Amino acid sequence: MTANNTTTTNGRDKARVLIVGSGGVGTMAAYTLEKGGLAQVTSVLRSNYAVVKEKGFQISSIDHGEVTGWRPSCIRDAIPNVVEESLPPFDYVIVSTKNIADVPPSIAEMIAPAITPSRTAILLLQNGINIERPLVAAFPSNPVLSGISVIGAKEFPPGTITQNNYDISYIGPFSSPTTTTTPAKETETNKENAAAHRFVQLYSASGAVDSRYDADVAFNRWRKLLYNASFNSVCAILRTDTARLRASQHAIDELVRPVMLEIAAVAKRAAGVSLSDDLINKTITIDLYASFFKPSMCQDVEKGNLLEFENIVGEPLREAARLGVETPTLKVLYSLLKSLQFGIKEMKGLVDVPRESSPALKYGDKNERW
Amino acid sequence: MTANNTTTTNGRDKARVLIVGSGGVGTMAAYTLEKGGLAQVTSVLRSNYAVVKEKGFQISSIDHGEVTGWRPSCIRDAIPNVVEESLPPFDYVIVSTKNIADVPPSIAEMIAPAITPSRTAILLLQNGINIERPLVAAFPSNPVLSGISVIGAKEFPPGTITQNNYDISYIGPFSSPTTTTTPAKETETNKENAAAHRFVQLYSASGAVDSRYDADVAFNRWRKLLYNASFNSVCAILRTDTARLRASQHAIDELVRPVMLEIAAVAKRAAGVSLSDDLINKTITIDLYASFFKPSMCQDVEKGNLLEFENIVGEPLREAARLGVETPTLKVLYSLLKSLQFGIKEMKGLVDVPRESSPALKYGDKNERW
Repeated sequence: MTANNTTTTNGRDKARVLIVGSGGVGTMAAYTLEKGGLAQVTSVLRSNYAVVKEKGFQISSIDHGEVTGWRPSCIRDAIPNVVEESLPPFDYVIVSTKNIADVPPSIAEMIAPAITPSRTAILLLQNGINIERPLVAAFPSNPVLSGISVIGAKEFPPGTITQNNYDISYIGPFSSPTTTTTPAKETETNKENAAAHRFVQLYSASGAVDSRYDADVAFNRWRKLLYNASFNSVCAILRTDTARLRASQHAIDELVRPVMLEIAAVAKRAAGVSLSDDLINKTITIDLYASFFKPSMCQDVEKGNLLEFENIVGEPLREAARLGVETPTLKVLYSLLKSLQFGIKEMKGLVDVPRESSPALKYGDKNERW
Repeated sequence: MTANNTTTTNGRDKARVLIVGSGGVGTMAAYTLEKGGLAQVTSVLRSNYAVVKEKGFQISSIDHGEVTGWRPSCIRDAIPNVVEESLPPFDYVIVSTKNIADVPPSIAEMIAPAITPSRTAILLLQNGINIERPLVAAFPSNPVLSGISVIGAKEFPPGTITQNNYDISYIGPFSSPTTTTTPAKETETNKENAAAHRFVQLYSASGAVDSRYDADVAFNRWRKLLYNASFNSVCAILRTDTARLRASQHAIDELVRPVMLEIAAVAKRAAGVSLSDDLINKTITIDLYASFFKPSMCQDVEKGNLLEFENIVGEPLREAARLGVETPTLKVLYSLLKSLQFGIKEMKGLVDVPRESSPALKYGDKNERW
């Protein structure tokens, strides 16, 4: 753990931002915020802590150019406890880890020590729907914000970030009047709106990236789900890229498009969100320019990383079940993703697979064989 | 090509058998038939031709023990043409290749030069349903027989066979009165019955293995499909074994059992075959004793071999569509298997995947990105 937790003189009027998860997305957010000069960032690092502590981040960015040996104002190897450490409160806690809902600890448990009630805004820079629910329940006095990022940024090896697609982020209140999944009182809406607008200001201050206020979080999250529930799931199961799905055509007609239509049906019923056929067609070709692109879950399967599928496939499926919407394709993909996750959990020692035997069925029992 | 195609004096009254496909199953059939002394076998070899020509097969068998340097009476590197080569007709042509219905040549085209009309019986030692249809259509005067084998035999490396499960085979006429999928006239039935009974005799003559007349081909083929459409498909898609599916339980409840129930529903409607819940439960635990067993399609995916999924999943699905039976799980698995097959075809140069580009969507078009 580093010692530098005090706000510098220069930083007295800066927003205090904690970023949990410093892979591609989190590190570029940290860099952008500090470059803007309106925020002072503490980053929580895990696997890359030692290398970044020693040498800083090496960044190659389409937005910012080449940056070597950079560190945010403060790095930590664990979530700071603001009360026990008597730290000034954080204005924002950004969660840019993957959202692995089926493996503890929950995000709410994880970030709790860094949250100051009625003060800290929580920004979930993550995919999926209903991800705000456990946070709203755990921190009822704190604004919870939606962050949708279309950045293309990867970390490899640890501490080295390559950002090869522009950082565009959409920041908005989960409790926006149009976010029918999380209705909120007027006062809460205002508070969340203010926190979102301020964050857009902090994030845009560098002048290098595009950050926008998201006035329709529900629409934008379901819209992004069109891609993630379909391409991301199917590519993960098949270990292939989106170009190959398009090249085989039947994969679009029999898997990708049916899932998108199922998502559109759930979005309509669950959140009153309309995802048009035009939008579906556009989403099918959205990464044509990035031929042979493997979406994140596919990369995770191949690396043996846990999959964030509950927020992307599990939640829309549960909404569908609750509302009686038919989702036959999504249902099978979900079960297959759950099985892939089981295999990854086994590799990580999180589940056991017993060696089986049966007294009734042995090699010798010819007649029991068939 | 070897020269030895003449029937020896000793072999004058032996049945002449051609075996197409000499991997684990085909080689053990060749060995068993020749050991019985009532048949003279010509084997068609592909990838293992050179090594077997030079050194023979090395066999390690639970039924026959250790056998080194063994060859059938005749080996060939291509299907013999009985007319052009003026060969005596074959009494049986056994097809023990995988059944890759979506890649030419068809089995009918492949074996045509070896078939003598009204004489040669064709024995399909292969999985799946409706596999006899193209053969019955191509060779209307020849008996077409069903062979179901529960042998566990693998070839690795080429020419080396390990048989670690007993050879039990069920031989019967596809046109049996109970095989409602291929109704036949009485005379044809009698001819096929006779050919099946004679083959059981040839195959049982060694005394080492168990060969049985199959009086209910339809039932037994649909029954085997219970396992293959479910475990074989799901394991191939997930690249896992049946023990891990059972260990995760949801994979049984949400994938394996639903597919089995769908197959049972199609079997009932398409062939009047009843596959009971008891049989389904037995099939779910049938290879408990062989913990961590990867079914054949899974092994094929991992080796980059073409998958025989059309006869195992495609055909029951087409029967279901024809008869209006709901098969939501099977449908998604089929599309995924077709995508896996597309990837394998790409590796083998059978399909092309174009590098995509889109004039409308480039890295520079920020506003088109989202």
